[in-house]
Amino acid sequence: MNGAESLVRTLVGGGVDVCFTNPGTSEMHFVAALDRVEGMRCVLGLFEGVVTGAADGYFRMKGKPASTLLHLGPGLANGLANLHNAKKARSGIVNIVGQHATYHIGYNAPLTSDIEGLAWPMSAWVRTSPDAKSVAADGAAAIAAAKTSPQQIATLILPADTAWNEADGIAQVREDHRPLSYCAQAVEQAARILHADSVHTLLLVTGSALTEQGLALAQQIGEKTGCTVMSETFYPRMARGRGRFSVNTVPYAIEKALAVLKEFKHILLVEANDPVAFFAYPNKPSMLKPNGCEVHRMTDCGENSIAALEVLADAVHATPHDAKPQKFVELIKPTGALTLTSIAQAIACAIPENAIVVDESVTTGRGFFRPTAAAAPHEWLQNMGGSIGFSTPVATGAAIACPDRKVMSMVGDGSAMFTIQSLWTQAREGLDVVTIVFANKIYQILRNEFDNVGAGEPGKRAQDMLKIDRPTLDFVAMARGMGVPGRAVTAADDFNKALDEAVHEPGPRLIEVQI
Amino acid sequence: MNGAESLVRTLVGGGVDVCFTNPGTSEMHFVAALDRVEGMRCVLGLFEGVVTGAADGYFRMKGKPASTLLHLGPGLANGLANLHNAKKARSGIVNIVGQHATYHIGYNAPLTSDIEGLAWPMSAWVRTSPDAKSVAADGAAAIAAAKTSPQQIATLILPADTAWNEADGIAQVREDHRPLSYCAQAVEQAARILHADSVHTLLLVTGSALTEQGLALAQQIGEKTGCTVMSETFYPRMARGRGRFSVNTVPYAIEKALAVLKEFKHILLVEANDPVAFFAYPNKPSMLKPNGCEVHRMTDCGENSIAALEVLADAVHATPHDAKPQKFVELIKPTGALTLTSIAQAIACAIPENAIVVDESVTTGRGFFRPTAAAAPHEWLQNMGGSIGFSTPVATGAAIACPDRKVMSMVGDGSAMFTIQSLWTQAREGLDVVTIVFANKIYQILRNEFDNVGAGEPGKRAQDMLKIDRPTLDFVAMARGMGVPGRAVTAADDFNKALDEAVHEPGPRLIEVQI
Repeated sequence: MNGAESLVRTLVGGGVDVCFTNPGTSEMHFVAALDRVEGMRCVLGLFEGVVTGAADGYFRMKGKPASTLLHLGPGLANGLANLHNAKKARSGIVNIVGQHATYHIGYNAPLTSDIEGLAWPMSAWVRTSPDAKSVAADGAAAIAAAKTSPQQIATLILPADTAWNEADGIAQVREDHRPLSYCAQAVEQAARILHADSVHTLLLVTGSALTEQGLALAQQIGEKTGCTVMSETFYPRMARGRGRFSVNTVPYAIEKALAVLKEFKHILLVEANDPVAFFAYPNKPSMLKPNGCEVHRMTDCGENSIAALEVLADAVHATPHDAKPQKFVELIKPTGALTLTSIAQAIACAIPENAIVVDESVTTGRGFFRPTAAAAPHEWLQNMGGSIGFSTPVATGAAIACPDRKVMSMVGDGSAMFTIQSLWTQAREGLDVVTIVFANKIYQILRNEFDNVGAGEPGKRAQDMLKIDRPTLDFVAMARGMGVPGRAVTAADDFNKALDEAVHEPGPRLIEVQI
Repeated sequence: MNGAESLVRTLVGGGVDVCFTNPGTSEMHFVAALDRVEGMRCVLGLFEGVVTGAADGYFRMKGKPASTLLHLGPGLANGLANLHNAKKARSGIVNIVGQHATYHIGYNAPLTSDIEGLAWPMSAWVRTSPDAKSVAADGAAAIAAAKTSPQQIATLILPADTAWNEADGIAQVREDHRPLSYCAQAVEQAARILHADSVHTLLLVTGSALTEQGLALAQQIGEKTGCTVMSETFYPRMARGRGRFSVNTVPYAIEKALAVLKEFKHILLVEANDPVAFFAYPNKPSMLKPNGCEVHRMTDCGENSIAALEVLADAVHATPHDAKPQKFVELIKPTGALTLTSIAQAIACAIPENAIVVDESVTTGRGFFRPTAAAAPHEWLQNMGGSIGFSTPVATGAAIACPDRKVMSMVGDGSAMFTIQSLWTQAREGLDVVTIVFANKIYQILRNEFDNVGAGEPGKRAQDMLKIDRPTLDFVAMARGMGVPGRAVTAADDFNKALDEAVHEPGPRLIEVQI
């Protein structure tokens, strides 16, 4: 077998059996190997931002890495923005990038570029395979690197001759099967702080603490001790909906965040980080905690936060009986005009049980959090890296990971345009994704931030860089162009109906919510 | 004035008066400064690949750099593929990238990444401005770097506090006004070679030698001495059409290239490079020249090739009288079915005088070169970096540069999907661009390359990664969704009519050629 086949067999053997791809000439032997190897599902994207975002979404729902297949430096470059988001979410990805044949690189042919240089900023592990006999072992090392705890992005660069030359066979992945651990002293320290001054203590959680089990433990600890439990502003995945603890998040707006955090003297971090502002603003702090507040790390990403929370709950004598039912906003099917409130209500009513909600609703979605706490149980995925064009690819990958769950992809019109090509892959694969585009015809978050950074009132030319209303984008037409049926709605009743139809019919749908 | 305003004023003062942009929060002070500074045309793109490709197209037609404005690392990342193409075309661009405030970078907020690391692979000059008082001087240095001969990509990274803090004023650009030169000895050497063995000598030209004047000189030299004149396979810009010397190009297909070059004992390079294969193929050479062939550089990119060709023409006693009229394929308005031949004929007939043709027609366009030699005089722009998603952004920028010329953007369906968002900017700015999408529903070049790399006959799974026919892409619907009127054609008569209408009506149009 050649190097490409040895790699594909090593990937499948190592449990990496989905490949999101947009290949080119230098990757043709990898593509050819797909015909000879059973067990690899290859999913084509028409743009690399779709490919890498889908790998992120797949990881978040499946908990194991998919691979990508990208064409040389520019193909990797197109995928970097969503690799950035994946990196910040601690998603594991085996990111495979083709390269010219080793002997061809030095000739500076048109597509030559510094692929390792491009890969490093968004990867934890980068290796260029030197020859065909090394490819399988390098592939196995990439899988092991991607599956490290916490998982991460491993970029394997595959020169064309390492794919077409004869290989030695497949390689086994040396996985680290040790169970996740945590630092007992850090938990003891957390217990001491809660005993001493729980009222002024914030338990700030993310990662595995945002599973149903983790949230339940955090709620017990919070209610038993009187400490506050919050999630970071953005989170990779949160268990939400009826029967689950609805945890508050640190607000995005800096004034609100400072106000919410100002009483705390201690912050206990469960996989979270010392809270910082998303952006800097003139004359405002970068760190959000008040002066004198002490930050203590209880667990880091990649540690066993569930076990640590269980020990902490024991230490503070918290039990499931301490968790009192929360008061939720009532689910109301809205009527009348589309407002930020009625949109949120409609979505809360529509979320079906076990749904995956991918949230890039930006300003329109600021009010979605509370009403959806009462929705049917679901998972909520967010953008951890802030690079827009996140939702539609991540929804695509989540749907590949979980074919039996409905995916709701909520996205602002500005964000949707960065990776709109995702719709085609959704149609091609018949994925159960409802894309809901909030069409307010403006980068509204930038209009807000224009004020926040003290730039005053935008004049005509500045406004022109914020508004995307000229010409009006017709997302229903674009979706149709990519094989996804869609409809536009301008009133709450219509929106309810469109959601109902989209949730109950299989296959992809798009709803353009005209605000 | 603040740093942002000092930069915008420095740009305008330095002749950089067009900014292609997709800004974010960290760039809001730059956007705000637009309201206070006259003379900067800001053009919004909905995706950064549009922004950087437009800057490339602008440079190619205007001969001077535009600026970009991109949002942090991910915004730059999205623009890198077309920066790669621009770099390989030797286009000058002042590439401005926002950054977190200097004091905020260390906090690792979600959008933090290694911006300099991302910039270097596609830039010749990179600088992060350290403070507001340095921004104007750094901007002036970036302009000077972009305008270096040969021109290049200069990336200026602008931390948010350098934009909002108080600056000292604007800075002057220290331009190098020395006239372009060339190496007299290299020209003498070229003359000696032509005297000794012109029949086995190839004059391989690109860059400024592909202007009407450069081509005329090359033709005289070729016809006087009997040497062969060819252009590199791909070229940044070529003067073509009736009355101009139609130069052959080195074929893309490696067997054809090897066959065409096999008789040469000398290759004289005029800005060109020693010819290499676009990709490596098993058991085929990377270098295309035959064994024993000597390569001599006459001029390099950034030298005065016109003057050098004039001296060489004198040395071989070539005059305009030596240039005999070429035989052109007759212009025939096709009828009947759409075939590769009839498509080429229709385009050759339709090209209006002074048009700018941006060519990413890939496999469909392989036969366009000969018939269009007889078209009305026009300029032909090609992709120098091989990263697809080139044509629609470059056409956008070319139209901004030359509002009085019709732009014809020819693109394969696969390529068109990478940067389809360009259509919206074309509609917004009312640009005279006709986008012609060749919809063959397959990455046909990859189907060919699958054979070329010796991967055999693609099976079902491999074919699935090459074909984009499921679902069918409807480009007319997508164009309508972005405000561009379009029509699909399936026969030559329809195509003629659609071209005629699109060429004669102002504003953007799209034609989907269904093959």
